[in-house]
Amino acid sequence: MVSASTLSAGSVGEVETRYLDLPEPVPLECGRSLHPIRVAYETYGTLSPARDNVILVCHALSGDAHAAGLSKTPSESGTRDGFGAAERDGAAGKGLGWWDGMIGPGKAFDTDRFFVISTNLLGGCRGTTGPSSIDPATGEPYGSGFPVITVADMVRTERAFLDVLGIERLAAVAGGSLGGMQALQWAVLFPDQVDAIVAIASTHALHPQGVAWNAIAREAIMRDPAWQGGHYHGTGRTPHAGLGVARMVGHITYLSAPALNDKFGRRLQFADDIRHTVTEPEFEVESYLRHQADSFVKRFDANTYLFTSRALTYFDLARQHGGGSLARALEPVSARTLLIAFSSDWLYPPSASKEIADALGALGKPVELRVIDAPYGHDCFLLEEARQTPIVRRFLAGG
Amino acid sequence: MVSASTLSAGSVGEVETRYLDLPEPVPLECGRSLHPIRVAYETYGTLSPARDNVILVCHALSGDAHAAGLSKTPSESGTRDGFGAAERDGAAGKGLGWWDGMIGPGKAFDTDRFFVISTNLLGGCRGTTGPSSIDPATGEPYGSGFPVITVADMVRTERAFLDVLGIERLAAVAGGSLGGMQALQWAVLFPDQVDAIVAIASTHALHPQGVAWNAIAREAIMRDPAWQGGHYHGTGRTPHAGLGVARMVGHITYLSAPALNDKFGRRLQFADDIRHTVTEPEFEVESYLRHQADSFVKRFDANTYLFTSRALTYFDLARQHGGGSLARALEPVSARTLLIAFSSDWLYPPSASKEIADALGALGKPVELRVIDAPYGHDCFLLEEARQTPIVRRFLAGG
Repeated sequence: MVSASTLSAGSVGEVETRYLDLPEPVPLECGRSLHPIRVAYETYGTLSPARDNVILVCHALSGDAHAAGLSKTPSESGTRDGFGAAERDGAAGKGLGWWDGMIGPGKAFDTDRFFVISTNLLGGCRGTTGPSSIDPATGEPYGSGFPVITVADMVRTERAFLDVLGIERLAAVAGGSLGGMQALQWAVLFPDQVDAIVAIASTHALHPQGVAWNAIAREAIMRDPAWQGGHYHGTGRTPHAGLGVARMVGHITYLSAPALNDKFGRRLQFADDIRHTVTEPEFEVESYLRHQADSFVKRFDANTYLFTSRALTYFDLARQHGGGSLARALEPVSARTLLIAFSSDWLYPPSASKEIADALGALGKPVELRVIDAPYGHDCFLLEEARQTPIVRRFLAGG
Repeated sequence: MVSASTLSAGSVGEVETRYLDLPEPVPLECGRSLHPIRVAYETYGTLSPARDNVILVCHALSGDAHAAGLSKTPSESGTRDGFGAAERDGAAGKGLGWWDGMIGPGKAFDTDRFFVISTNLLGGCRGTTGPSSIDPATGEPYGSGFPVITVADMVRTERAFLDVLGIERLAAVAGGSLGGMQALQWAVLFPDQVDAIVAIASTHALHPQGVAWNAIAREAIMRDPAWQGGHYHGTGRTPHAGLGVARMVGHITYLSAPALNDKFGRRLQFADDIRHTVTEPEFEVESYLRHQADSFVKRFDANTYLFTSRALTYFDLARQHGGGSLARALEPVSARTLLIAFSSDWLYPPSASKEIADALGALGKPVELRVIDAPYGHDCFLLEEARQTPIVRRFLAGG
């Protein structure tokens, strides 16, 4: 890894996304199996000779493998606003990894100690096989013919990927939101191979309002005529209009109402009065939403949004593994568990983390729940790095 | 009014929507004036000889003039689910007015005492002139050429309408949500002509998150290619896809997260497991949303949604009338004011009503704020009739 002088202390420096093709098909929960699968990934830090210092970092809905450092190919790596952390766009600049504040020398996931691996998830559109990849059966992109994947499928793909790297055990699996779901799924599926998990701003099952928001986002995409039943690749038309609406819905659910109030209030775009227009933005928050939509559709695939959103609404540890009982689902877990939630997060509220903590606690398993009082909503997991860092460092040191 | 034997005690009986054409143009805040204007209205009860027992009832975004009783033309009057009160659809049956539980003999707005008038608001699509009406300048529907109206324009139209009926003073103006905004606007614009206002689940200015939800709903409509810049009338294509998404967004904001949890939980549509589908509803709440969208687009006009949504985001008493100060804006008010808010309403939260109450109280004006602890969110104003009734009756008796 090259250390660029323009980067602040604690950076992992310049990084490059790499790609690995899995040698075997991965069996999926829907009954199909997928082959070939390419996995996009980055690594930070140094693998120990005993291969016992690996932390797998899992990203959220709109993320990618570029979690830390400065990408050598910034045009492809997206910007941090992909995660709703738009507040930081200007300061962080383009090309910085989405969790750069958490991964690096001396940071929460300390690359002086740990070898951190970040992959783009199965179904993604940032290098890992997904709906825009070529289906070998047809020679065309899968489109909506991509298998309907689950979080468990993502995790089994990550497992297969690590097998190729020769990494059997993980010191930790960590992630926020959908990334936290993957961490929890790892602890349930591969209890003997995970020493610790860090699930931030996450849940064991999205609540019904969250299911509804995701359904609305998907409806916005699928009702866009340019979606064309999911087979828009090569037609010259893409469902940017619908994907933009989906992004707007997502974005507002990632923020808290007070944060929106602090950031925008009811400030108007122009001067002190309204211009009497329905088609143009009048309020700053309206203009902001359009900007978020426009920048998102340039870098993200609509079908990946659909399949990933579907997977995270399906995720339900109690249904999948406990016959409806969360406690039974968590019985196999042997990893130490750190749960972090944020007081203002109404999409992944602290109550969900508390349910996990209570269930693990009742089973006598080591679990720590920290609820951070912070105002930014779900986006806190990307913004409140300073307050998460000592919690994560102490937890990982306790292993 | 004919009393139908099928109706419960307290019903105003069968009613018919009537129409009245205003004799003069109405000057609008955007600088244009509108003519002709037809107003759809219903009345319940008997006008006193002194014409001093009139209550004007104002509806919310998706409403109409049919507020009480059983419509003689149910196919045109819509169903209660138009207001998100879908819980009551089955029990209430089609054709019942949207506030039938509140208006009638012995009810909150007691037609044994008051003469209740309900109009479809300016810009509406249920009989009053709106974007789907014919523009006399072109002979075609206005479409997006309809003037960008405000709540004050709606109220001035109501004022002009009452002038034609020979009604100068109002015993009260009442409404929920956007209807409450109209009540507040009446008290500010025509302080000498309003004895009391009842503003339920309303606000002096929608908070930024509410502005954002409305912006997203409008984006969903305008990004639908079938919207065609707002001139879809006569083209054989209507933006039902986008309007449906707008309705879904609205619907979820009208309900509370706990109410969604109680009503749907994470129950699946079929059997006990997922079917691995992105395109079809899996969760009951997903199917419910589609149903809400499908039934809404059959009865509502997309441009009316745009213009009405824009008007309610513009509404801001402090900006419009107080140079930024709510207290200054409310200085002219002489009406007694009743504010009702609901604990679980996160779109029009109790805090907004409290700001109005505090401002009026500081000015020494008579105001009563009642916050009802109820779980259904914004829809409470349509559902919690039993608990609102004694509050409203006592308030109106105190006049």
